[in-house]
Amino acid sequence: MHKFDELSKLFIERFNTDHFPQQPSTLYDPNRYFLQMGGKRIRPVLCLMGNELFDDIGEDAWQVATAIELFHNFTLIHDDIMDKAPLRRGMLTVHQKYGDSTALLAGDVMLVAAYEYLNKVSFKYSKKICQLFNQTAREVCEGQQLDMDFEQQQSVQFEQYLNMITLKTSVLLGASLKLGAILGGALERNQNLLYEFGRKLGLAFQVQDDYLDAFGDPSKFGKQVGGDIKSNKKTFLLIHTLETASAVQKSRLNELLKTDDNSKVDEILCIFRECKVDEWAKELKEKYLQEAFEHLEDTAVLSKRKEPLRELAYYLLEREH
Amino acid sequence: MHKFDELSKLFIERFNTDHFPQQPSTLYDPNRYFLQMGGKRIRPVLCLMGNELFDDIGEDAWQVATAIELFHNFTLIHDDIMDKAPLRRGMLTVHQKYGDSTALLAGDVMLVAAYEYLNKVSFKYSKKICQLFNQTAREVCEGQQLDMDFEQQQSVQFEQYLNMITLKTSVLLGASLKLGAILGGALERNQNLLYEFGRKLGLAFQVQDDYLDAFGDPSKFGKQVGGDIKSNKKTFLLIHTLETASAVQKSRLNELLKTDDNSKVDEILCIFRECKVDEWAKELKEKYLQEAFEHLEDTAVLSKRKEPLRELAYYLLEREH
Repeated sequence: MHKFDELSKLFIERFNTDHFPQQPSTLYDPNRYFLQMGGKRIRPVLCLMGNELFDDIGEDAWQVATAIELFHNFTLIHDDIMDKAPLRRGMLTVHQKYGDSTALLAGDVMLVAAYEYLNKVSFKYSKKICQLFNQTAREVCEGQQLDMDFEQQQSVQFEQYLNMITLKTSVLLGASLKLGAILGGALERNQNLLYEFGRKLGLAFQVQDDYLDAFGDPSKFGKQVGGDIKSNKKTFLLIHTLETASAVQKSRLNELLKTDDNSKVDEILCIFRECKVDEWAKELKEKYLQEAFEHLEDTAVLSKRKEPLRELAYYLLEREH
Repeated sequence: MHKFDELSKLFIERFNTDHFPQQPSTLYDPNRYFLQMGGKRIRPVLCLMGNELFDDIGEDAWQVATAIELFHNFTLIHDDIMDKAPLRRGMLTVHQKYGDSTALLAGDVMLVAAYEYLNKVSFKYSKKICQLFNQTAREVCEGQQLDMDFEQQQSVQFEQYLNMITLKTSVLLGASLKLGAILGGALERNQNLLYEFGRKLGLAFQVQDDYLDAFGDPSKFGKQVGGDIKSNKKTFLLIHTLETASAVQKSRLNELLKTDDNSKVDEILCIFRECKVDEWAKELKEKYLQEAFEHLEDTAVLSKRKEPLRELAYYLLEREH
């Protein structure tokens, strides 16, 4: 059994190869540029962990882990175009550096490259693996579309937001684990428990992300604190506040959403605190994390083997072990 | 054996189903809109013909034909974004009607849907089919990137243009036939001959397309005649003229390329005629068509069975049978 950072290191070593031909460099250099930006490579490591839970890590799991990471990078390149994001990890995004059209195509060919790795999976599992991979890819696209739709909508309900986040973020975490588990020969019940573990972990992570944007320590939080508030982004916090605030608070909040004053962030934070949405968010994150752990505990594997997954969960959710 | 228009009709009947879930409609309605625009469905029919050359058309061939058509439509949706094309078949393009971001995502999910059909192919052929499909998808992206690169380049050589057209247009025709042939149990030699038949057919078709833009009958040609000339598009005609014209003609041509006068199209057409590029293009088209037919004749199948493919070639190349 490997620990999280051992697996992460092993994956990064293997992944650090050229996945693309040299020519045409105008198409493939942008992909090389984007991949060398690095990243935590959480999803492929989840696949390897899901695999090692049931067996020694096999060649198929390495291929699928690579496919997952390429798929994830495809979504990032395309999302950055849609979000008109100038930077990622402090570096220029692909569309910013090479133009929208090249970024679009570079993303497309990144997705095709993911399918090339997927096609290396041995016969025994190939259909099942492709089926789950395709379903997940489709759901991630659906999630991104819903996210864009919500920007145009006046109000979004908690359940709608939860569904969007599930599709956009969580299913890929669940699927990464399940793909590894399938290849490890896991029983279907265990596959599905791991999927749910990953899905709930993703929800807990998103609650934390939304929380940190509002209440995070600016010195630790990678992004500008209050960015979501400034841009009226629908988050767990805003949606819950609009659903639970008093009529007076709600009308003040709705007024503030229309303004762009300097005091906007502070005033909205004040309402958030009045509504105790900070405490609510901490509890919601805890709830999802507990549910995730329950699914992990239910998985019929020696408890000791689950240690790396617990460790990863604590790492992602910034909790002391 | 089915004739071309019989197969076309059968495919369209089968293809005319809903390939996407209802929700989120903001993502899938754009794809439904685009697919109902119709089209000649040449590529899937090539797959069916390649299949029927060797065997009765099997379920696998129908699935792959569907995957090919979805893939082709994915490329059209994304190409239209990159080209900023307002119309296709006289109707609004997806990005024009629904916005760039939705068109981008709708294209992405169309590609995923193609892979979903591909995953239905039976085990015996699935690896080989996916391998060729992926390679072709990658090449089509490369061709599109080269096409965009050429727009920025001062000069493009004939061989470079040929390579770009091969990737952007021809390989998918060749691959459609070969995918069908693989599923029909064809020997590798026959698979490759059919691929070359399709590839050369694609080149002949592109020469014709470039020719018709300059010399076509406005009443028959679907597009505005001279459109390529107006926009300085590098075509077989322009590239060949720049490579073979006299110094005087070349400098006149280069001057004209910098202008946007009303007389530009007529004057460039005049140079084309002086250089006899119209006759050269007709001969080049004939040459590719003849080479295509030689590959078809070499294919070790009863000549009678090849009749639908000859018919399709004559139909595409607008020649009397």
